[in-house]
Amino acid sequence: LPASEFLDLPPRAGLTHVLDKGLGLTAWRELLDAAGDYVDIVKLGWGTSYVTQNLDSRVELFRSYGKPVCVGGTFLEAVLVRGKLEEYKTFLSEHRISHVEISDGTISIPREQKLALIAELARDFNVVSEVGSKDPSVELDVGEWTTWIREELDAGATKVLTEGREGGTSGMFSATGEMKTSAIVEVADAVGIDDVIFEAPNKAAQSWFIKQFGPAVHLGNIAPEDVIPLETLRLGLRSDTLKEVLGGEPAPAS
Amino acid sequence: LPASEFLDLPPRAGLTHVLDKGLGLTAWRELLDAAGDYVDIVKLGWGTSYVTQNLDSRVELFRSYGKPVCVGGTFLEAVLVRGKLEEYKTFLSEHRISHVEISDGTISIPREQKLALIAELARDFNVVSEVGSKDPSVELDVGEWTTWIREELDAGATKVLTEGREGGTSGMFSATGEMKTSAIVEVADAVGIDDVIFEAPNKAAQSWFIKQFGPAVHLGNIAPEDVIPLETLRLGLRSDTLKEVLGGEPAPAS
Amino acid sequence: LPASEFLDLPPRAGLTHVLDKGLGLTAWRELLDAAGDYVDIVKLGWGTSYVTQNLDSRVELFRSYGKPVCVGGTFLEAVLVRGKLEEYKTFLSEHRISHVEISDGTISIPREQKLALIAELARDFNVVSEVGSKDPSVELDVGEWTTWIREELDAGATKVLTEGREGGTSGMFSATGEMKTSAIVEVADAVGIDDVIFEAPNKAAQSWFIKQFGPAVHLGNIAPEDVIPLETLRLGLRSDTLKEVLGGEPAPAS
Repeated sequence: LPASEFLDLPPRAGLTHVLDKGLGLTAWRELLDAAGDYVDIVKLGWGTSYVTQNLDSRVELFRSYGKPVCVGGTFLEAVLVRGKLEEYKTFLSEHRISHVEISDGTISIPREQKLALIAELARDFNVVSEVGSKDPSVELDVGEWTTWIREELDAGATKVLTEGREGGTSGMFSATGEMKTSAIVEVADAVGIDDVIFEAPNKAAQSWFIKQFGPAVHLGNIAPEDVIPLETLRLGLRSDTLKEVLGGEPAPAS
Repeated sequence: LPASEFLDLPPRAGLTHVLDKGLGLTAWRELLDAAGDYVDIVKLGWGTSYVTQNLDSRVELFRSYGKPVCVGGTFLEAVLVRGKLEEYKTFLSEHRISHVEISDGTISIPREQKLALIAELARDFNVVSEVGSKDPSVELDVGEWTTWIREELDAGATKVLTEGREGGTSGMFSATGEMKTSAIVEVADAVGIDDVIFEAPNKAAQSWFIKQFGPAVHLGNIAPEDVIPLETLRLGLRSDTLKEVLGGEPAPAS
Repeated sequence: LPASEFLDLPPRAGLTHVLDKGLGLTAWRELLDAAGDYVDIVKLGWGTSYVTQNLDSRVELFRSYGKPVCVGGTFLEAVLVRGKLEEYKTFLSEHRISHVEISDGTISIPREQKLALIAELARDFNVVSEVGSKDPSVELDVGEWTTWIREELDAGATKVLTEGREGGTSGMFSATGEMKTSAIVEVADAVGIDDVIFEAPNKAAQSWFIKQFGPAVHLGNIAPEDVIPLETLRLGLRSDTLKEVLGGEPAPAS
């Protein structure tokens, strides 16, 4: 529960998918104590889970707060390059990781192979798949975004991420950080927003999504330090969305 | 006290007004242990205090170090939109918050109403008011900056902040982050620098203010991780201000 | 040891030189617990060690993990301006600091004097010297970079840093952050990469160095929160270097 409720704001809505790249466990614990209601899933970014020396403590911390842990998609791409899929599944199980991201943002994976992979991993894990390239020169058209999102949901993904990276520089963003707003709106019109998590790694993008789709939009790759700020954006308690969420004029003196 | 005093630097001067957006309490405690002398007031940014689940522990931590806690102005603007001013005062009192920021950076508040609000809240709280819009397209002229700062001090504000946001993108900054240096100098010439806190959320701005007005200038919206770096800028112990604060030539060998 | 080894990656290589600007000790301890294998030396940036109030606890923490502590070069430049070299040596010894950086990025020090200073401090400390200016308008040519690096190694520096600042805006970078790639390659061809630490304070620079010189390149001014991400870049577990380090095609299904 928040510190107070006197503003009579609507109840919380929208998933917040948080990107961890190795934040200290005390900082995480205290963030979950202060703002745990606003963290829905934690992604251990790309291959960080392979190199951290206290992975089990990290996973156990999130489990103790009831937060699902997902491993970033680039790790799986590296696994495929090394031909170690079975070992990867064992790694996930041994470390009690329940969610896995399946992406093809770096290497090429034929569509049929990606969909088969989603189906295969969905038997043992909760699969979040990702559409979009990490190469900013790769432009998907609206038809590709739409078809691929639908196919991946049909194959067994519980949600589909739209690529944005940690910096907002590819996928639904240009290399210089501008959002592809008309493509996003068309894709959202076609597939809806309930099954999509939009990667939105900066305040400008988060504000835009909330203004466009409302506070219940699912947002991903949120930095831990932005969990509380994002919640204020959803509630209209920060300048960027205040007028849109709360309305803009002071109430007449009573 | 700093780790050492062998450089015979002048005593510390200038207020450092720090922006909290939900940093973990252990990180805060350790920052105050390492650099508490350089923190003069802590602002709980915009509406973050409404959503954090351990607000009382946070306030108590700052109180135990003798640091006043201020709530950011956008929260009050949201309160006015919802027509909940009395409830807001109760919220502040119940959570033992002594300082409150009054701004009109997002919504329009007629001048007389803003000044009345400052006077009213100044009866129960230490009021820090803010001049400047969060909309980068709004340009105040020097006369407006000067008149409004003076009026707000006269109405009961103990200090007046000049807008800069968390990113340095409005108020005394352009949308692309350039500082409005000639306006700042003219305003400072007119109202002095003792009663003004300049929001200066990045190193370039902090360095400019210190070079322009000296180490005693009051600077605001400083990120917690920049408290120690800012102190080195004030003392001439970082490249950006070394020559201006300490002089630039090595002393002749003795 | 990393969490796992199932990908059969090559052993770790390359020094990671980390820039501290006052991070909390708990965050540091937990980073060293999670990723201590990937931290080779910690630099207390510029004059931060002078102003932090718990310097001895900070140094002791790093010593307890076997990590050498270095003081940033701008501090020494301030010391020279104040004419306090002997007091500085006492300061370092009293605080049990073993490594010292010698730079002339802010003030002018004649070459012979800088080399003499390196030789003098190398009698009592491990000296890391730095070549390059913090003034982005100062352009060294390849001959200067090469000659000066060699001279400083000959004078007693154990490694030489190439300037990049905390932001990647001077030295081997332009004021707007572009890398001087052809100069870097020519300098590296001439002096080799074993005795040089390239300051590379952002992901784009780190990725470029790893792709250009391989995972064993020594990189400096790494932010603590980038220690784990950098290790994934060295290992090919992040998109930016995956193809170059691991190769780019999925292994054929076995």
